[in-house]
Amino acid sequence: MIRGIGDDCAILQVPQGRQLLATTDLCVENVHFRRKWHPARSAGHRCLARGLSDIAAMGGDPLACFLSLGVSQELPQGWVDEFLRGFLDLARRYRVPLAGGDTSAAQQITADILLLGTIPSNPAVLRSGARPGEQIFVTGKLGGSAAVLKRLYAGEKVGSGAARNHFYPEPRLEIGRQLRQAKLATAMIDLSDGLSVDLAHVCRESRVSALIEASAIPVASSATLDLGLHGGEDCELMFTARPGAKMPGRIAGVPITLIGKIESRSSGRFPVQIRDKQGHIKTLEARGWQHFGKNITSR
Amino acid sequence: MIRGIGDDCAILQVPQGRQLLATTDLCVENVHFRRKWHPARSAGHRCLARGLSDIAAMGGDPLACFLSLGVSQELPQGWVDEFLRGFLDLARRYRVPLAGGDTSAAQQITADILLLGTIPSNPAVLRSGARPGEQIFVTGKLGGSAAVLKRLYAGEKVGSGAARNHFYPEPRLEIGRQLRQAKLATAMIDLSDGLSVDLAHVCRESRVSALIEASAIPVASSATLDLGLHGGEDCELMFTARPGAKMPGRIAGVPITLIGKIESRSSGRFPVQIRDKQGHIKTLEARGWQHFGKNITSR
Repeated sequence: MIRGIGDDCAILQVPQGRQLLATTDLCVENVHFRRKWHPARSAGHRCLARGLSDIAAMGGDPLACFLSLGVSQELPQGWVDEFLRGFLDLARRYRVPLAGGDTSAAQQITADILLLGTIPSNPAVLRSGARPGEQIFVTGKLGGSAAVLKRLYAGEKVGSGAARNHFYPEPRLEIGRQLRQAKLATAMIDLSDGLSVDLAHVCRESRVSALIEASAIPVASSATLDLGLHGGEDCELMFTARPGAKMPGRIAGVPITLIGKIESRSSGRFPVQIRDKQGHIKTLEARGWQHFGKNITSR
Repeated sequence: MIRGIGDDCAILQVPQGRQLLATTDLCVENVHFRRKWHPARSAGHRCLARGLSDIAAMGGDPLACFLSLGVSQELPQGWVDEFLRGFLDLARRYRVPLAGGDTSAAQQITADILLLGTIPSNPAVLRSGARPGEQIFVTGKLGGSAAVLKRLYAGEKVGSGAARNHFYPEPRLEIGRQLRQAKLATAMIDLSDGLSVDLAHVCRESRVSALIEASAIPVASSATLDLGLHGGEDCELMFTARPGAKMPGRIAGVPITLIGKIESRSSGRFPVQIRDKQGHIKTLEARGWQHFGKNITSR
């Protein structure tokens, strides 16, 4: 960073031979988090984790982050301080400087995160690279974050220490980077909206279809298959790889699981099919991630 | 732009030998605009203009923009369409691709704009470059946007056609670029918060003080001196130049006006002084830009 906060713009240097990545994520109170459920520190962590996870899904390295924050005058300063602590703790851990942002009055707490990153000049891992015959993998366990949300909805108190995957999810930057460097992934996406929605994204962008195995989904111990298929915000990655690729069982300590394969697109059919535990193949509806009961169109 | 909307991140190429500029501007309904005063198209234009004006103040070229938009489900789709029309019309005029963004449900309309730009690798025009003895200039006329706002506050109906400087302000990209290229400006800022606040920013960053002449301020015909000194959002630039610099009377058709000079900092004194029309020198309080009566800390 050449120049951070304090001028009209931040000035940054993209290393020679590298391309620039940019992503924004808008987090709104009562849509992406609730004050009575999420400690301010968790809200700050989760906002930044969403952006870092997008950088991870390209196999990139974070360069700088920006935060635009709207809060009401009634909000205690302590909340803002803790929000920033959660945000900045995570930023420090991945060595991402906070290079700027903006503030405003707002009725709801509103945090828009901008993440800039870089990748070497050719091999970004896009959503559009999947080809028929390739294998589909996911990182980690799925549905754990949504399982916590379900408990919160049901009125349960859930401590943030016991459910870190929901309150303090870990963006998979190291995995994304290693997959890109080893040229193991042909397409990649982060599962922010849930496997059913995000796999449909990859199929659409790659013009292919997919068949996954219900028995293969690595469902978190606290979750159900349904939450594993449709719950989002675990910060896990999904990627495809060539049939002969030598895929390690773990990358950066996180298990890598084969869940299905890419097939050629057949027009008229929904792009994602699932084989259930009885061997029946059916359409996997893109039910996706419902933010607190509201369906949000989000990328 | 290598890859825009549709993947986890946009991918952009910063031309070799150039540095990256980044700025965000958060616009919130009833803080930065009001639906009953501002047509949706003007709101969209103004949001993007704020970001472009920050790029102008560095003497940079815009590269891409991103829009994070929060709206309620009750908001008519027509409003969103017109907002985007105002936004995209301005983007097209300056050839800035919309490379991504995010959407969410929100009670208030919330638009966070991210602007990326580039500059050649050394001579960005910072806020910190002003030196004692230099001259202070502003572009265009000041206070016109605030004068319209005052009328709106008073309950007047103001048509957006008759008051384009408020509803459709023009970012001074060409002026910023020419000043940088000709190495005419030693420090520069856009007057988004008002001259009194933004000149104090430059003084603080450059560790100098300033004396301006009340009689020299180019006040818009519809405005008063007070609005010219403290009203913001005209999208005009303020910059400093060496004493011997040959400053054209106009750049890109816009008048350039000498309003004062930079002096060395004297500790204890407020950094900005003004000589009134009677010749008395007094402190120019940084009253700044008050968004609809609320004081917002914003850069």
